[in-house]
Amino acid sequence: MEYETPLFFRVMSYASEADRDVIDMVSGNPDWEPPAALRSGLREYADREPSAFQYPPSEGLRELREEIAARRGVDADQVVVTNGAGEANYLAMARALERDRGEEVVLTDPVYPYYPGKTTMLGGTQTFVAVDDEGRLEPSDVRAAASEETAAIVVNTPNNPTGAVYDGETMRELVAIAEECDAILVSDEVYDHFDLSGRFESALSIESDHRIVTNAFSKSMAITGFRVGYAIFPSDLVVDAKSRHMLVNVAGSRPAQYAVLRALRETEPDYYERNRDLLRGRIETFTGALDAAGAEYTTPRGSFYVMARFDGYPGTLENVYRLIDEAGVAGMPGDAFGESRSEWFRFALVTPRVETAAERLSTRFA
Amino acid sequence: MEYETPLFFRVMSYASEADRDVIDMVSGNPDWEPPAALRSGLREYADREPSAFQYPPSEGLRELREEIAARRGVDADQVVVTNGAGEANYLAMARALERDRGEEVVLTDPVYPYYPGKTTMLGGTQTFVAVDDEGRLEPSDVRAAASEETAAIVVNTPNNPTGAVYDGETMRELVAIAEECDAILVSDEVYDHFDLSGRFESALSIESDHRIVTNAFSKSMAITGFRVGYAIFPSDLVVDAKSRHMLVNVAGSRPAQYAVLRALRETEPDYYERNRDLLRGRIETFTGALDAAGAEYTTPRGSFYVMARFDGYPGTLENVYRLIDEAGVAGMPGDAFGESRSEWFRFALVTPRVETAAERLSTRFA
Repeated sequence: MEYETPLFFRVMSYASEADRDVIDMVSGNPDWEPPAALRSGLREYADREPSAFQYPPSEGLRELREEIAARRGVDADQVVVTNGAGEANYLAMARALERDRGEEVVLTDPVYPYYPGKTTMLGGTQTFVAVDDEGRLEPSDVRAAASEETAAIVVNTPNNPTGAVYDGETMRELVAIAEECDAILVSDEVYDHFDLSGRFESALSIESDHRIVTNAFSKSMAITGFRVGYAIFPSDLVVDAKSRHMLVNVAGSRPAQYAVLRALRETEPDYYERNRDLLRGRIETFTGALDAAGAEYTTPRGSFYVMARFDGYPGTLENVYRLIDEAGVAGMPGDAFGESRSEWFRFALVTPRVETAAERLSTRFA
Repeated sequence: MEYETPLFFRVMSYASEADRDVIDMVSGNPDWEPPAALRSGLREYADREPSAFQYPPSEGLRELREEIAARRGVDADQVVVTNGAGEANYLAMARALERDRGEEVVLTDPVYPYYPGKTTMLGGTQTFVAVDDEGRLEPSDVRAAASEETAAIVVNTPNNPTGAVYDGETMRELVAIAEECDAILVSDEVYDHFDLSGRFESALSIESDHRIVTNAFSKSMAITGFRVGYAIFPSDLVVDAKSRHMLVNVAGSRPAQYAVLRALRETEPDYYERNRDLLRGRIETFTGALDAAGAEYTTPRGSFYVMARFDGYPGTLENVYRLIDEAGVAGMPGDAFGESRSEWFRFALVTPRVETAAERLSTRFA
């Protein structure tokens, strides 16, 4: 399995050299506007005094940590502001493996490919638990896979790439399994603002010192390039996580933190609701076309992604290239996310051209 | 030995609670203006289209890498833009230790305390080589300390805290030792724009596949909080370093990279020269007062720092607190930088109040 980014670049580069117009449904970059307060926060920051351009506290601007803590119902001391969810997951997984309670990391299949990549880098081993065709994760399967060798169970809800949203019962079971095995549940909730089911439940709602929650403003504020995320640790795990954060990055970037703080304070709920509505419309358009094309597909309950399978046209890298040439639609090959989805394509609905893409696919396969 | 930041916070917090006015000579944060183009770059970025707010390439904005490569005379493929020099040093040291040519990291004493901290985090062991009272590093001492167990030799020139600048002959010898031991010389050159001696020579000037050069715009552009740095790797080491960078951080923060790119292109040499002149004046003022106080001290040939020793008043943390109360001047205790300087204070000359601090010290000790 390759990491998503290089494969992503290979697909994007093929698409850009294609002899026709291609719609990018590869990346997970929102195409909509960031909150207005984010732009004004950045403008305001640009005029500040030199001291405002120097190191923020290593764990993040105090007011930003306090805003996050208040929203998430935790103590600000438990919050580490990170360089995006990427660093948050790295710190969380490193912390779980450092506890010396085993080297195994339990992951789902399909999986967001950075998790197995980070596991290897940190000296751990991967055990995969398959989810069903709807993306549902059975806690009993996780319990069967986990053992005293398990350092961490890493889940992503709402899920990339399946679009599944784990319900409260599943989250409670996952925390319980982590406690039984003296492991850590790492719950990556970066798509929490794109729960379309109303059934999302954060691992934070379950009191435990065996769970770490990671998140970022990358998707919710449409700023994947700003790199502002956070991790919420149990009190007994946070000190060492802060040390690692300091030794790796010293601190996150302050202009980005400053702008996010402004946006977090000033953005009304309808900003987030509008983006969910946009996504709902795109899902309807796109899955309608997949119906017309006779494809099998997942209807996302959260996140940005639709997985689809076309009869006699498996989602290999070769067919990803072929689909670019034949239909002018670029997706990701399913095996980027694990063995179980090797016949599927993943399409990201973060382009204003979803309707045209849908028409092209239904024309190609109808 | 503690990491600098927590100790820094303890000293700063003591100073802020003191019952008198205190001059901060603790932090390494420049107090002067960033380049004008940096502010305008940030303003311009704030108005860009949503796609400009999404992930930059993992290794950094292409134009920024090309500007760096052109200035440093290397291929852009060798450049990884990092979250400040902190991440650059982390990637460089990790890469050296991953080569499985030994677990030992050779460091100087005194030392910038993040280096031994990173070494421990990465599973290495530290061997310290003492420099002389002027901060001079004898390559023969490094050769005596290094062995086939040596994974890396980490140096900082111009040096924090000694103010030493290693000459070309020293750098050539250090590269040669790294080659002899099949180790990697990591040369942290973040103060290169604050060479006051005219004798600074980058390790880049010595062709070798056994040296990694790290740097950042934090000091040269007075933006320690932006977190834009870089590492230049030999071609055979760069691929794995990019993977680690991607798995830890995904990418650095794009608004900061964008503003730095503008500033790098548009800032004239006189901006940097003006800041060096400012520093020269401060050094003269401050060391003059130390003379009047009968103190022993180092005159920096580069970087921002003066080390000083007062008779009967060793630079312990206790005496750092006492000096805050007695003189209203806050420095760092020498043992933050290693055993050899435990009797010394380090004073950072990045405050507009150097003259007042100088007067206070000469009054206290005269």
